[in-house]
Amino acid sequence: MRLSRFFLPILRETPKEAEIISHRLMLRAGMIRQESSGIYAWLPLGKRVLDRVCGIVREEQNRAGAVELLMPTIQSADLWRESGRYDDYGKEMLRIKDRHERDMLFGPTNEEMVTEIFRSYVRSYRDLPLNLYHIQWKFRDEVRPRFGVMRSREFLMKDAYSFDLDAEGARTSYNRMFVAYLRTFARMGLRAIPMVADTGPIGGNLSHEFIILAPTGESEVFCHEDYLKLPVPGADVDFDDAAGLQGLVDGWTELYAATSEKHDEAAFDAIPDASRLSARGIEVGHIFYFGTKYSAPMRAVVSGQDGQEQPVHMGSYGIGPSRLVAAIVEANHDDKGIIWPEGVAPFDIGLANLKAGDASTDTVCADLYAKLQAGGKSVLYDDTDERPGSKFATLDLIGLPWQLVVGPKGLASGTVELKHRASGEKESLSTESALARLLG
Amino acid sequence: MRLSRFFLPILRETPKEAEIISHRLMLRAGMIRQESSGIYAWLPLGKRVLDRVCGIVREEQNRAGAVELLMPTIQSADLWRESGRYDDYGKEMLRIKDRHERDMLFGPTNEEMVTEIFRSYVRSYRDLPLNLYHIQWKFRDEVRPRFGVMRSREFLMKDAYSFDLDAEGARTSYNRMFVAYLRTFARMGLRAIPMVADTGPIGGNLSHEFIILAPTGESEVFCHEDYLKLPVPGADVDFDDAAGLQGLVDGWTELYAATSEKHDEAAFDAIPDASRLSARGIEVGHIFYFGTKYSAPMRAVVSGQDGQEQPVHMGSYGIGPSRLVAAIVEANHDDKGIIWPEGVAPFDIGLANLKAGDASTDTVCADLYAKLQAGGKSVLYDDTDERPGSKFATLDLIGLPWQLVVGPKGLASGTVELKHRASGEKESLSTESALARLLG
Repeated sequence: MRLSRFFLPILRETPKEAEIISHRLMLRAGMIRQESSGIYAWLPLGKRVLDRVCGIVREEQNRAGAVELLMPTIQSADLWRESGRYDDYGKEMLRIKDRHERDMLFGPTNEEMVTEIFRSYVRSYRDLPLNLYHIQWKFRDEVRPRFGVMRSREFLMKDAYSFDLDAEGARTSYNRMFVAYLRTFARMGLRAIPMVADTGPIGGNLSHEFIILAPTGESEVFCHEDYLKLPVPGADVDFDDAAGLQGLVDGWTELYAATSEKHDEAAFDAIPDASRLSARGIEVGHIFYFGTKYSAPMRAVVSGQDGQEQPVHMGSYGIGPSRLVAAIVEANHDDKGIIWPEGVAPFDIGLANLKAGDASTDTVCADLYAKLQAGGKSVLYDDTDERPGSKFATLDLIGLPWQLVVGPKGLASGTVELKHRASGEKESLSTESALARLLG
Repeated sequence: MRLSRFFLPILRETPKEAEIISHRLMLRAGMIRQESSGIYAWLPLGKRVLDRVCGIVREEQNRAGAVELLMPTIQSADLWRESGRYDDYGKEMLRIKDRHERDMLFGPTNEEMVTEIFRSYVRSYRDLPLNLYHIQWKFRDEVRPRFGVMRSREFLMKDAYSFDLDAEGARTSYNRMFVAYLRTFARMGLRAIPMVADTGPIGGNLSHEFIILAPTGESEVFCHEDYLKLPVPGADVDFDDAAGLQGLVDGWTELYAATSEKHDEAAFDAIPDASRLSARGIEVGHIFYFGTKYSAPMRAVVSGQDGQEQPVHMGSYGIGPSRLVAAIVEANHDDKGIIWPEGVAPFDIGLANLKAGDASTDTVCADLYAKLQAGGKSVLYDDTDERPGSKFATLDLIGLPWQLVVGPKGLASGTVELKHRASGEKESLSTESALARLLG
C-alpha cells in the first residue's frame, strides 16, 4: 500500500481524553476514532490489525473443531424471556422497539439465540459434540465507557458455544477451547494466564478468565509466577485426544491463579515468597461451563443412546478481538509508539523513501516494494514528500516490525537502512541483502 | 471439512413461508435461519458463501483504490440532524435511546458518519481523491420484510464514499466504482446491467443501479439486449487513467437501460424490436454522485490550490453482499438445487464416501481429501453413514461445482465418479485422473 493512497491520519498531539497508553497510541496512530461515547470507527490501520487478530482467532477456533456461523446483532426479546435473562439483565442491555412496537435488543451475548438454533435442528446424541462460534459486534451499554476500545459499548466478540450429551463430554469441549485460547494469545505475542473466575451473568460453576498482566489492567490478580514461563501447546495438539487435552489443562491450572473475586489468601500465601505474583491484569478471554442452564428452560434436548431425551450440556467461550487490539498495545509499546508483534502487525514492513521525486530513489523503492510484495510481505510504502524526521516518527509510532529506509545518501554508497522496531537495531546493507533478510 | 464435523442442517421439506426460489433453497440447504422477521442467522454453509462474496467485493474495491475501514453500527442522532436526514428518514430508521436517554440509531447507511470522519482529518486538496469503504451490517426497518435475505431488515452492505475536489474528479471516482462493480458481479457469475436510476433518499443527480435479470425480480426494467453480451473490463484496467475509465463507462451506458422509475417510452421504442428487452430485475448495486449535499451542511471542506476552502464533492457506492447471495441463487439453480458459480461456492468439491466404515473406501477417500486440500481446493467430505441417494440429493441441493463419488463398486474396477454440477455430466475415471482434472 502506498501511503499517498492510504488513509493514515496521524495525530502529532497526545489526545487529552485518553487515560491509558493504548488509547493514546491508537488515537495518535490513526487506528480508531470515537464516534459516540464508547463507540469507535476503526480507521484503515486499525482495521488491518483487527482483521489479523480475527484471523488468528478463527484459525485456532477451526483447528479446535469449532464451526463458524454468523448470528445477527438484533435479537428478539422473546428469546431472552425464555431463559429468564430479559428481566435479569440490567441497563447494560440496549433495548429497542421496532416499528411494530415489538421488543428487540442489540445482543450483548448469544447463549439464547444459539440454543434456539441448536434445538431447531439437532435431535440426536450422534450429532454431538458440536461447537458453533461467530465473530460479531455486540453492544453493552456501559455506564461509563472508557479506555478507548478496551471498555467500549459496541465491541467485537468471538463467542463459541459447545453442546455435549453429558458433563464429561462438555469438560472435553471446555478443554479444547482452553487449549485453543492458550495458542490464540501466544500467537498474538501475549502471555495469557488462565485464572479461576466468577461466572457472573452467564452462570455455571466452571470458568476461567484469561488475563494478561499490565500495570493499567482493571483487575487485581494473584498467581504463581511460573505461569510466565509455562510452555504453550503447539500446533500439533490432538484435539480428539480427551486425555491429552485434560493433561494440558491440568498443567496450566495446577498452580495458583485467581482474580480478586475468587482470591484465596491462604492458598496464595502457601506459594513461596519469591514465586508469588500479585499484579494488575487485563481480561482478554473468558470461558464457561454452565451445564443445562439454558438448554433445560429452552428445551434444547437430544435423544441419548438409550432413546431418552435429555437437555444438552453447554459451555460458552468469549474473546474480544477489539479489546485485544488495545491489550496488545498495552503489552507492546515504548515511548516512541507501538511495537506490533509480527503475527498481528498491520503491515510487515514500512518502506520509507527519503526523497520522493528523486528518480533513482524512486526506482529503488519501487523495485523493493514490488519484490517484497511478490515475496508475500505486506508493505506500507511511504512515497510522500514529508521530511525524513516526520517519516521516522510515523514509522516508530505505527510500530511495523521492520523499517526499510531508502535515501540518496545511502544509495550513493550502495546501501539502504534496515531497522528492527522492537530492538531498535539498525543496519546499513545492500538492497539485495535487505531483501534476503526480509524474505528469508 | 468433514461433514460429520460440520453443521449442515438440510431440510427435506420445502418451507412453506418461502415465496421465492432463493429463499426456499437457502433454507433447505441449511444456509440461513430466520431469527425474527427479516433477521437471519447465517449458518455455516451460508457464512462461507457470504465470505466469498465479501472477498470478491473487497478485492475489487481495493483494486480500484478504495481503502477499507470499519464504522460502527450504532450512530448518534446528532450526526443525522446535521445533514437534516434525521427527520427526513421515516420509520425505516431503527431509533434507539441509550441508558442516558441519548438518541441513537442503527445505521441504515453512513454518509453522515464518513463525512464526519473525513472533515475531522482532511484539510487539503493534496489528500484527494479519497475513497473510504466498509462492509458492515445495516438495519432498515422494512414494513414487510420478505424473500429471505433478499429483502431483510438486518443486512450486510459494502458502502464506499468518495471525496474529490471538484465535479470532474468526482466523475472519475464514480467511474472507478462503476467499472469495479462490473468486474465484481462478473466474478460472481452474474451479468449486471447498469441502469439509469432514481437517487431516492441519498440524493444527487447521477446514479446507476446494477440490475440482474430474473423472473422473480422486484422491479420492472427496460434495456437493449446487447447488454447481455458486452465485454466486462479485465483485471488489468488502469484505474488511474481517467479517460480510459470514461471510455469504458461510455461503452456501458450508451445503449438504453433504465428502471421503471426512470423509463422513457420513446427512447425505448427507438430500439429495434428484436433488441428490446423488457424484463424483471434484481438490484444488486447502486452508485450515486451527489456533489456537496452532505459536505456543504456538514462543513467537510478542503483548501484548494488557490488556498480557498471549498466543500468536497462526494459519491456513495453500495453493494449488498447478503442480498447478493440470494441473487446468485436466483440466477443459478435447477430443480435439484443450487448451482454455485465457482467464484462463490462454499466448497469447491463435494467428496462422497458411499460406504463409510469400509476400510478401502475410507482409505481412498482420506487420500483424495488430503491431496485435494493440499492442492488448494476446499472440500466438503461426506464421511457420514447416510445412504447414497441421500448423499447425492444433498450434494445437488447445496450445489458445489464438482462432486467426487467414491464407492466400493467403482473401486473394484479402479474408478471413482466425477460429476460436474452445472452440466450434470458424469465420468468414471481413475483416482489419479480425477485428481489431475480437479487440480489441473
